[in-house]
Amino acid sequence: MPPFSFRLTATDGQARTGEIATARGIVRTPAFMPVGTAATVKAVEPETVRATGADILLGNTYHLMLRPGAERIAALGGLHRFMNWPHPILTDSGGFQVMSLSQLRKVDEKGVTFRSHLDGSMHALTPERAIEIQNLLGADIVMQLDECIGLPASRAEIDRAMRLSLRWAERSKGAFEGAGGRAIFGIVQGGDDRELRIESARRLVEIDFPGYAIGGLAVGEPQSVMLEIIEEVGPALPAERPRYLMGVGTPGDLLEAVARGIDMFDCVLPTRNGRHGLAYTRFGPINLKNARHADDPRPLDETGACAPARTYSRAYLHHLVKSNEALGAILLSIVNLSYYQTLMQGLRAAIVAGQFERFRAETQAAWTAGDIPPFVRA
Amino acid sequence: MPPFSFRLTATDGQARTGEIATARGIVRTPAFMPVGTAATVKAVEPETVRATGADILLGNTYHLMLRPGAERIAALGGLHRFMNWPHPILTDSGGFQVMSLSQLRKVDEKGVTFRSHLDGSMHALTPERAIEIQNLLGADIVMQLDECIGLPASRAEIDRAMRLSLRWAERSKGAFEGAGGRAIFGIVQGGDDRELRIESARRLVEIDFPGYAIGGLAVGEPQSVMLEIIEEVGPALPAERPRYLMGVGTPGDLLEAVARGIDMFDCVLPTRNGRHGLAYTRFGPINLKNARHADDPRPLDETGACAPARTYSRAYLHHLVKSNEALGAILLSIVNLSYYQTLMQGLRAAIVAGQFERFRAETQAAWTAGDIPPFVRA
Repeated sequence: MPPFSFRLTATDGQARTGEIATARGIVRTPAFMPVGTAATVKAVEPETVRATGADILLGNTYHLMLRPGAERIAALGGLHRFMNWPHPILTDSGGFQVMSLSQLRKVDEKGVTFRSHLDGSMHALTPERAIEIQNLLGADIVMQLDECIGLPASRAEIDRAMRLSLRWAERSKGAFEGAGGRAIFGIVQGGDDRELRIESARRLVEIDFPGYAIGGLAVGEPQSVMLEIIEEVGPALPAERPRYLMGVGTPGDLLEAVARGIDMFDCVLPTRNGRHGLAYTRFGPINLKNARHADDPRPLDETGACAPARTYSRAYLHHLVKSNEALGAILLSIVNLSYYQTLMQGLRAAIVAGQFERFRAETQAAWTAGDIPPFVRA
Repeated sequence: MPPFSFRLTATDGQARTGEIATARGIVRTPAFMPVGTAATVKAVEPETVRATGADILLGNTYHLMLRPGAERIAALGGLHRFMNWPHPILTDSGGFQVMSLSQLRKVDEKGVTFRSHLDGSMHALTPERAIEIQNLLGADIVMQLDECIGLPASRAEIDRAMRLSLRWAERSKGAFEGAGGRAIFGIVQGGDDRELRIESARRLVEIDFPGYAIGGLAVGEPQSVMLEIIEEVGPALPAERPRYLMGVGTPGDLLEAVARGIDMFDCVLPTRNGRHGLAYTRFGPINLKNARHADDPRPLDETGACAPARTYSRAYLHHLVKSNEALGAILLSIVNLSYYQTLMQGLRAAIVAGQFERFRAETQAAWTAGDIPPFVRA
């Protein structure tokens, strides 16, 4: 079994490209991880997710521990076999979703107790249990348990949660069994406070993780705040370890975060917005509910990387969305996942070619130019 | 353009197999037509529907005339291009769904007026307009407008609706433009009344259609009533024309109707029940909501014709269904469409081999034997 490793193959300014090696395969970075919340990337078959260019998926510990249960998935051969995705999987620790989804949560030194949003049952998550669950799932990359707080928050509250997350980082690392090309990542916390973020990063580096995430962003703050924090935290992290910006973001977020040295992302936006009629394209986001598409025989993007972007008319996609047909959600989820992967592939190639700034400028200019003009029947 | 034609290639008892030739391709009979209500077979991409073995789809005039509109689809190049299905399509006339879905409908000699279930707007459907819509859609097989009534009903009411449907059959045929390998079918009505059914069939044969449907069944009557009517109507129809049993049915209905000389079927059951967690298999129907599947690592059917039946564990399908995940609806719709096509392929091969009775007995015995025993972990 080859050990977990990360290799930078090129840099261009702060932007980096490389490869994460896991027991289940290579992850090309910058990488976008589609979110497979409940052991499925919503509305898309796994081989189709793969065909969009995804090297790795994210699974959610919170959802999977509640249903169908980590021990059950382990008895069935692990999450990869369960969901028919033999490629790398990263699992989160459950911390973020305990905060955002569950009720009656109580955080103390030991961990967090909470009530399931599904059936009201009580559950506990400690750093040790969060790692045990992720081991049972068989994730290739495992995340420490952390406490995620919303912004804005007082400095005292941010400080408290950051220090608790550091103690949980140590306990999480202690509970992780690293054999078999797997790895555990630490998570930088500290809200929007520059000093606390840097302290969190330095202390995590002392603990020593094979990779570092920046958590607790994209929770309501402006993009500028997020980018500043990435800029502050970056120099405190070792260049030779992957950097994962959790829960981010729009295509524009990804472009700007890669410009600041981020290697990995996950986000529900491409699938969630696809289910609601929004397509991400090289022309920027396109709202297919809009009546301008009703009679438009043209495809979303005749140069799109996936068949749905090239094959179906905008009129048909509009019809499916307006009719609330499942096929609309399916096709637009594929379109969006494919666009995200096309963007990542473009970023990787641009960095290798030393053309990152040009790629960024051209991509932003195309988004700003917007969609093709409305269709006019001849 | 080759003309529309039907060729019987083998018979075994009353059971028949053959080929319908249309401008867009061959339809092997007995044929099952998946239902593409609103220009989509719900939750399944058209190339996947094709891969299950479907030669022809059904489209619904009622749904399509209301949204997105027949003239709009025509301007976009017709229904085949709109939904990316280049193979044969049969469209119904809208009559059945006006009765089952719309409100405030009023039937008179001219046609039917009704209120849309979508937005309350008023619409009219005459035999001429029903055919015009189907011409605009570009259907390969077009259905006459008929009046469908529920059962039980009085003989006077059944008689009135049957005679109105005959007059509409003449008007429908007159409005149809038959060029280009396309055809219009007449529809036998007459409820559960033997004499009225036979009269309807004979009068339709006098009008002379390239194919005949039996309508107004599977509306609540026992299977035995449906089968008796098929047996009564059959001898009144010319052997060399295809016979289409509308809106039917379960796998058992199909088996028994083929035994009585039916050539074509359509039904929403495989997709609708797939969306609700029911899988049709060679073991009979399997309810994946049942907790017996929660820890079962075995596939639905390791010999199934489609990948989802062989690839995913019952535990995973159970999880998707319980979690209300779109992928559950997608996979079980594929499983069911595939099983229906496997059944039709088996019927066709058995008839060619002169083994229909054996195939029927073995298929029924397997259904009766039921599902594999519950999984017990070793």
